[in-house]
Amino acid sequence: MSEWLIEPVSKTGVPFAGTAGSNPALSVFCFGLCFVSRFNTKSLKLIMRIALGQFNAVVGDLAGNAEKMREIYAEAVRSDVDLLVFPEMAVCGYPPEDLLHKKHFLKDCSSALEKLAADCPDKTIIVGFAENYRDNNYNSAAVLQGGRISKIYRKAQLPNYGVFDERRYFLPGEKPMVINIGGLNVAVTICADIWEAEWLVNFLKSKRQIQIILNISASPFHVGKIKKRQEVVSQCAKEFNSAVAYCNLVGGQDELIFDGRSMFADSTGKIRAKAKAFDEDLLIADIITTNNGTIEVEPLQAAAIQPANRADEIYQALVLGTRDYTGKNGFKRVLLGLSGGIDSSVAAAIAVAALGAENVVGLTMPSKFNSPETIGDAMKLAENMGIDFLTIPIEPILKQFDKALKTVRGWKGEGIAYENLQARIRGSILMSLSNQFGSLVLTTGNKSETAVGYATLYGDTAGGFAVIKDVPKTMVYKLAQHINKIAKRQIIPADVITRPPSAELKPDQKDSDSLPDYDLLDKILKGYVEEDKSAQQLIKSGLSRDDVMRVIRMVDCNEYKRRQSPPGVKITPKAFGKDRRLPITNRYISS
Amino acid sequence: MSEWLIEPVSKTGVPFAGTAGSNPALSVFCFGLCFVSRFNTKSLKLIMRIALGQFNAVVGDLAGNAEKMREIYAEAVRSDVDLLVFPEMAVCGYPPEDLLHKKHFLKDCSSALEKLAADCPDKTIIVGFAENYRDNNYNSAAVLQGGRISKIYRKAQLPNYGVFDERRYFLPGEKPMVINIGGLNVAVTICADIWEAEWLVNFLKSKRQIQIILNISASPFHVGKIKKRQEVVSQCAKEFNSAVAYCNLVGGQDELIFDGRSMFADSTGKIRAKAKAFDEDLLIADIITTNNGTIEVEPLQAAAIQPANRADEIYQALVLGTRDYTGKNGFKRVLLGLSGGIDSSVAAAIAVAALGAENVVGLTMPSKFNSPETIGDAMKLAENMGIDFLTIPIEPILKQFDKALKTVRGWKGEGIAYENLQARIRGSILMSLSNQFGSLVLTTGNKSETAVGYATLYGDTAGGFAVIKDVPKTMVYKLAQHINKIAKRQIIPADVITRPPSAELKPDQKDSDSLPDYDLLDKILKGYVEEDKSAQQLIKSGLSRDDVMRVIRMVDCNEYKRRQSPPGVKITPKAFGKDRRLPITNRYISS
Repeated sequence: MSEWLIEPVSKTGVPFAGTAGSNPALSVFCFGLCFVSRFNTKSLKLIMRIALGQFNAVVGDLAGNAEKMREIYAEAVRSDVDLLVFPEMAVCGYPPEDLLHKKHFLKDCSSALEKLAADCPDKTIIVGFAENYRDNNYNSAAVLQGGRISKIYRKAQLPNYGVFDERRYFLPGEKPMVINIGGLNVAVTICADIWEAEWLVNFLKSKRQIQIILNISASPFHVGKIKKRQEVVSQCAKEFNSAVAYCNLVGGQDELIFDGRSMFADSTGKIRAKAKAFDEDLLIADIITTNNGTIEVEPLQAAAIQPANRADEIYQALVLGTRDYTGKNGFKRVLLGLSGGIDSSVAAAIAVAALGAENVVGLTMPSKFNSPETIGDAMKLAENMGIDFLTIPIEPILKQFDKALKTVRGWKGEGIAYENLQARIRGSILMSLSNQFGSLVLTTGNKSETAVGYATLYGDTAGGFAVIKDVPKTMVYKLAQHINKIAKRQIIPADVITRPPSAELKPDQKDSDSLPDYDLLDKILKGYVEEDKSAQQLIKSGLSRDDVMRVIRMVDCNEYKRRQSPPGVKITPKAFGKDRRLPITNRYISS
Repeated sequence: MSEWLIEPVSKTGVPFAGTAGSNPALSVFCFGLCFVSRFNTKSLKLIMRIALGQFNAVVGDLAGNAEKMREIYAEAVRSDVDLLVFPEMAVCGYPPEDLLHKKHFLKDCSSALEKLAADCPDKTIIVGFAENYRDNNYNSAAVLQGGRISKIYRKAQLPNYGVFDERRYFLPGEKPMVINIGGLNVAVTICADIWEAEWLVNFLKSKRQIQIILNISASPFHVGKIKKRQEVVSQCAKEFNSAVAYCNLVGGQDELIFDGRSMFADSTGKIRAKAKAFDEDLLIADIITTNNGTIEVEPLQAAAIQPANRADEIYQALVLGTRDYTGKNGFKRVLLGLSGGIDSSVAAAIAVAALGAENVVGLTMPSKFNSPETIGDAMKLAENMGIDFLTIPIEPILKQFDKALKTVRGWKGEGIAYENLQARIRGSILMSLSNQFGSLVLTTGNKSETAVGYATLYGDTAGGFAVIKDVPKTMVYKLAQHINKIAKRQIIPADVITRPPSAELKPDQKDSDSLPDYDLLDKILKGYVEEDKSAQQLIKSGLSRDDVMRVIRMVDCNEYKRRQSPPGVKITPKAFGKDRRLPITNRYISS
């Protein structure tokens, strides 16, 4: 399809006087340049309809992703858009990591793209893909027009920090790309390109007036990040006096969540439309030039409901992450241990929201150290959620282990080794049932205990997916309350929320025997883990030296446990995992 | 200390006619410019004595590393060297990973360096460190002279592939540095800088004649890499008509081994001296200019004994890796399950070589499926090595588990779930003893089974360090033979080497029931895992489609197991771990 030129309306033969934007059926008339009576019958306006195809691309599923894009294309055709946009790496999913080292993968990626172009000839499409060009790899955006790939833009800003490793895979592109669609100049950018405002101004300076900055992204979620993302989009709009069309990926990929919330900003920087959070959506808007030089945005749909607050945002992220990890890895059902404590209760409620009560099985595995109250709460929780509930007491197994281990001189039958053994018996039972029935085991450790290693390796860390591994304990409580609030009833029993936390591995055990109070612990962890503060800085901020040094030591010593723990949803700015790569062998102690 | 200028010998007041190089005690006279009678009494020669301080720097151990460097400095002073060189990042160990995101770490690093300079004022030292300069991080080399840091070179070529993430941490330096020592021009480079020959020529082109290219490295080991490294050093020498002094790190750091083998090349590209492999060493040589424009190298020591062959090289790497992971993480003793099979036998022999027989405990945990022959072989092996040996039968525990699990409808008491359970009981026993006695558990899985997931997660993968995780099964056999050969007796019983491998988790089980023969399997794995070949390419090379597709599917499906497995020594060009970062959630299938 050739690019459109700005031409007087008379040449199009369509003396348009409809209501562009408000009615998809009519908007067919408003293609290219037209007279829009409802704004000002005397003004010359350009209108372009853009659809942002925010969809859940699966890493490596080239055929599946293409099929989904074809479906969205059909919908976009029905809505008569001028331009359909898909996220960064939509063809292959993001991040494909070392799949990008396989030449055949890149070739297959390219074939899938060509086929997509051929299948979708009637609209201009911009879609992200992994490109191999002259033996180098690029993170690219293809323009599909008339059944073929007409142009390619290569991402210039390659993030290589946090969870990103783009310099491992890609060379940076060096040329900007501005295409003219329906008389409007559209600058195509990819993700980080618009996060470097100063650089972008310079990068695009050779280009004439741009009406639309288009950005395709795969921007990973953490709580509150949408605010920063909106600022970036808004700032970019103001900087260029352009509309911004921002198309983000949605879905869970291993530890990452892409939260969608694609958006349009007008040239004053106002966010005029925002797609759904944590779900697929097709966000359509008309971009309209005005006489006064501003670019307006007219959304076609009612505004999508957005997360109500932080707890809601985290909750939705966890639900999506759990659903996608389970489903994309071929599991239907999950299995988890229910202790009657708050962590497993919250994890279970998230699993039910993600997969349906019929696909969640709870298991209580009491020893002599578990109180009737916690066992009762686990049962009550299962009842409240309507999930299958099994009980397998571990006492006889524990005794048999103890008997066998007593043959080794020095085995105590109490203390940490004995406590951990209980957790490992539970892990083995869960994994046995997982192997027998094909269910995925969810682990239930939170970020606070993961940080300080308050967990038994191959015990409570045994499982395929760690639902709340990046949720600090203090936030776990808020999630519990949120879960009850949105259910409008007590899913998680009140006792579970108010009872002092305990691992119940020895008589009268409390978490507070081994750890500072969680309020304090989470404060230290935020500073040390997420903000890389030194002991000195934390102590200066008013925390006690003893607490700070004790927590830092625990965090540092337990890197090996985290390295062997299952993946789980990242919700904070810095999660354990690809975000924070500390050596296990490490003698550095912050002073 | 100011740089020396080339001056006529009469000005130095030392009409030298000694035997520079051959006698450290005399060489004090041969500082700067001198007449060397034994070569040619009429020629004007420059001699510089360089010591390469190849030592085992521990990541994060700023005080310990500095202490070691001070000791080496004292030795270098006794040998009257003109220049003492330490490896890349010697101050903080390599790779420090996200420690580099901690400002206080970088500050402490800088303080340690300043103190080192002050403590070692009498010789020129070049040492690698992590530098924070104007809020950017660099991988730098400091020149220490006269008690202070006199100059800094910043690494320009930052590898960001394989196990390397240097773009995550550092900005590239942009300026070359050539310093004059004793009248000789020494270009300082860091690791990858000399691996890009064409680039380096351009980088150094503004500099006058260079007599010595100095390179400080932390070059990770894989089998056979020394050949490539020697080629690079040799090529560099020829390219610049310079001597090359190459100082490499030694030691194990998590999955990486640095194998030392620092070296000197003369300007014809000949490697004239090579330090020990897998051990600390102080390699000293005199660099001598000649009339004909070549630069000669005279080593002061006899040549160090080098690994005899591939098996020997791998063996030494595994021994060092096991010793360092154990020791640097504060363990003295290790514990491992001995099945009477070849993997655990080889792992045990390596542990004994690394830590001494008195620090290794072997455990056999038979079920009804273990034959008297394998149990006997495990015992014999332990005897041969002189290690403690414990027997804990798992049958009673297995029965108790089975009884408990039978309460769940559908539990079969046979099949994979039941087989895995046996491995998990063993894992729990090992971990219980580890927790009770403070020993590190070694796991014994090889690369072939790790690749196809022929292992029980939290069962035989339970432990702190995976000794042979990167050793293909076919190489495990060669290692077994090598171990017996160097012991000059049968440490590993002959039966262990000749018996068809079996997991012994059900009656008459053989590995070959589930897997292709290891010769074939390792061939496919080399192509698919290490060389990123497609199914098509492997089939075209003569492998059967069925085998190829089956193996590829197994490799792809078991990423989740590898992600939760303990670290182990990298010995191949591409190990599972930081070298190969595949998503778990991944629907791509190579065709």
